[in-house]
Amino acid sequence: MNYKLKCVHCGKIYDPKKVKYTCPVCGSRLGTLEVIYDEFPQVKKFDVGHKGIWAFADFLPVKADHFEVPLLVGNTPLYEKKDLARQLGLKNFYIKDDGRNPTASYKDRASAMAIAKAKELGFDTIYCASTGNAASSLSGLAAASGMKSVIFVPKSAPVAKITQLLVYGATVIAVDGSYDEAFDLSLEVGEKFGWYCRNSAVNPYLLEGKKTGAMEAAYQLRWNIPDVAMVSVGDGTVVSSIYKGFKDLKIAGLTNKIPIVIGVQAEGANALMRTFNSGIFDKPQDMNAFSMADSIAVGKPRDVLKACKYVKESGGKFVSVSDAEIGEAIVELARKTGVFAEPAGATAYAGLKKIKNELKNKSVLIFVTGNGLKDVKTVKSFVGHVHVVKPEFDAAREVLKDAGAI
Amino acid sequence: MNYKLKCVHCGKIYDPKKVKYTCPVCGSRLGTLEVIYDEFPQVKKFDVGHKGIWAFADFLPVKADHFEVPLLVGNTPLYEKKDLARQLGLKNFYIKDDGRNPTASYKDRASAMAIAKAKELGFDTIYCASTGNAASSLSGLAAASGMKSVIFVPKSAPVAKITQLLVYGATVIAVDGSYDEAFDLSLEVGEKFGWYCRNSAVNPYLLEGKKTGAMEAAYQLRWNIPDVAMVSVGDGTVVSSIYKGFKDLKIAGLTNKIPIVIGVQAEGANALMRTFNSGIFDKPQDMNAFSMADSIAVGKPRDVLKACKYVKESGGKFVSVSDAEIGEAIVELARKTGVFAEPAGATAYAGLKKIKNELKNKSVLIFVTGNGLKDVKTVKSFVGHVHVVKPEFDAAREVLKDAGAI
Repeated sequence: MNYKLKCVHCGKIYDPKKVKYTCPVCGSRLGTLEVIYDEFPQVKKFDVGHKGIWAFADFLPVKADHFEVPLLVGNTPLYEKKDLARQLGLKNFYIKDDGRNPTASYKDRASAMAIAKAKELGFDTIYCASTGNAASSLSGLAAASGMKSVIFVPKSAPVAKITQLLVYGATVIAVDGSYDEAFDLSLEVGEKFGWYCRNSAVNPYLLEGKKTGAMEAAYQLRWNIPDVAMVSVGDGTVVSSIYKGFKDLKIAGLTNKIPIVIGVQAEGANALMRTFNSGIFDKPQDMNAFSMADSIAVGKPRDVLKACKYVKESGGKFVSVSDAEIGEAIVELARKTGVFAEPAGATAYAGLKKIKNELKNKSVLIFVTGNGLKDVKTVKSFVGHVHVVKPEFDAAREVLKDAGAI
Repeated sequence: MNYKLKCVHCGKIYDPKKVKYTCPVCGSRLGTLEVIYDEFPQVKKFDVGHKGIWAFADFLPVKADHFEVPLLVGNTPLYEKKDLARQLGLKNFYIKDDGRNPTASYKDRASAMAIAKAKELGFDTIYCASTGNAASSLSGLAAASGMKSVIFVPKSAPVAKITQLLVYGATVIAVDGSYDEAFDLSLEVGEKFGWYCRNSAVNPYLLEGKKTGAMEAAYQLRWNIPDVAMVSVGDGTVVSSIYKGFKDLKIAGLTNKIPIVIGVQAEGANALMRTFNSGIFDKPQDMNAFSMADSIAVGKPRDVLKACKYVKESGGKFVSVSDAEIGEAIVELARKTGVFAEPAGATAYAGLKKIKNELKNKSVLIFVTGNGLKDVKTVKSFVGHVHVVKPEFDAAREVLKDAGAI
């Protein structure tokens, strides 16, 4: 596909051969770039089952011969939950379970795109800074593709996530500082050593990979676009990608509607919501972030302007939820649907529960962005306990009675 | 489908309306039952993408209206790895990644079948004893289906696996004893309270659910059956199911070959291999089992006779590998393919590496039976370490040099 890059801040249009990452005028914080296409071909069939995200190759900014990441990325299930829709007062309720990606998060969509792009551009090493999922995703997909990966993580990232990186053979730099410090350090080091950058917002192509989540959902819904799409928000690229995916489908004439996009943040890390609510999108309301939903515990969101613009264009907004609400959402989602989400993965559901009265009789789609197995430790305090017994019938009967199971 | 149950020991045939679990004559240890079908319909198209395992409904012993488990079970990717085939001296090398099932293991195939069967028979509670995956699978799929689950686990099961059960709302009985004691206690309690039993080998239908793994692989390979299929072995039902899946396809005329089936065990839990090698299949060589591959750390295998018979019929055998070999296999598989397996999940690959010289120029399929995220702790000692740095360029350069990354 022929495409150009457009600064989300000043609107200047760049040739992708000349500008790699962000707007040289507006800088990396506000001048993140959008990929805009000359036109979309008239395609109507998409082989999602075999190709995953590459079924939407005609909507993506990479040459066909650089596509292949030899793991099936995307093609994740979309479930309609009729009982739950009724309980929540919705017309329809859909769950897109992206925890079933190869490395168990939504970020695989972006990493696949980044690797394809790195190959097209001739890089052999790719790096990122990440609270976890972007990192495991990049290291897993890089391993599968025979590329080297260098990952910058804050030292506080969960052990399970760091181990996953090491299993895949990534070089892991654990930065004794915040995510934001890890991010800045990665840019400096990556630039110096000439590696390809897979940092959220800095690399404009990631969002294009991510938008396939929305496209896939639309395809699975047979182009019947829901009224509202909800997703958890940290840096802001995923929420932006949801809007862009639906928008590109509409531009291509495959659909006639873009859903209202609602971003859900953790209360302790709601910089994007506060920026949005201030009405001044190019003055990011940074903060010291904390949330147990580590994947969205971002104090200095990297795609703030784009996220605010896109969400506003969709007629949407941001809401925030407490860690306790997230914990309850994990458990409720698992028990009512069988989908076990990591904290950030269940955050959209927590947001939906919070504002369900505003969404009466709407058709709502939520994205589960990460698998609960990613971070089991955090959920422990929300789930009750096991009943320890000696291997004897009477002992078992006793505890079963106490547990209300008999 | 019309079907009957046949004792794998005495050969007696039972009406499934009259016998629920095991042969009343031969008992539960040797008298496990096979499901045999009157005939298979002439189907050639299978909608695996949308239906998962239920695409093979015509090969399964459950009525259509009881199928639905509202999670997509199966439809897991099959990868061909050409580079790795060359490195291993194989003609073809295929990996079936069943870690991408809804609860991240092969066992989802069996649990989906058990739940369908429980619904058909009118049960509302279903139980099992499990080292982990069968349990998380049953509790997750039961939650999705609105059924109650009671799970008996040995107290030593990994925390991550137990937490997953609790998230799904299962009643969890942690037995202060071995897996085998948990198993026996579950039978006693379940029978007493009239719950449906999802215990390996006891319930003859589980194997039918599991055989869809082989069928799906055959379908993905366009019915070009590999020479050899390898899978990890604990109780023996999965390895049996691989044979049965390929066999049923051959009976139905969809394929013309059954692969040699090779079961791979952990050295510290190789009771099935020892029984097989003794030549006396109905005298199980039980043992005190230990392996870090907890999903196959079984000392008293429950489907020993069937597993030995089927593997022998296929012309196969059992091999065993050390925990260190399993650890190395996890890391190598992740780094060379991007597939992160739990210890039992990588065991087939460890076995393949061990006997690769016997398999020269063969076409080999391995099953990865569980996702590495299930048990990240165990793999930690095999993966190297992170490099902790202050957020400064010079510090980063120093460690990158040490790590050989620059």
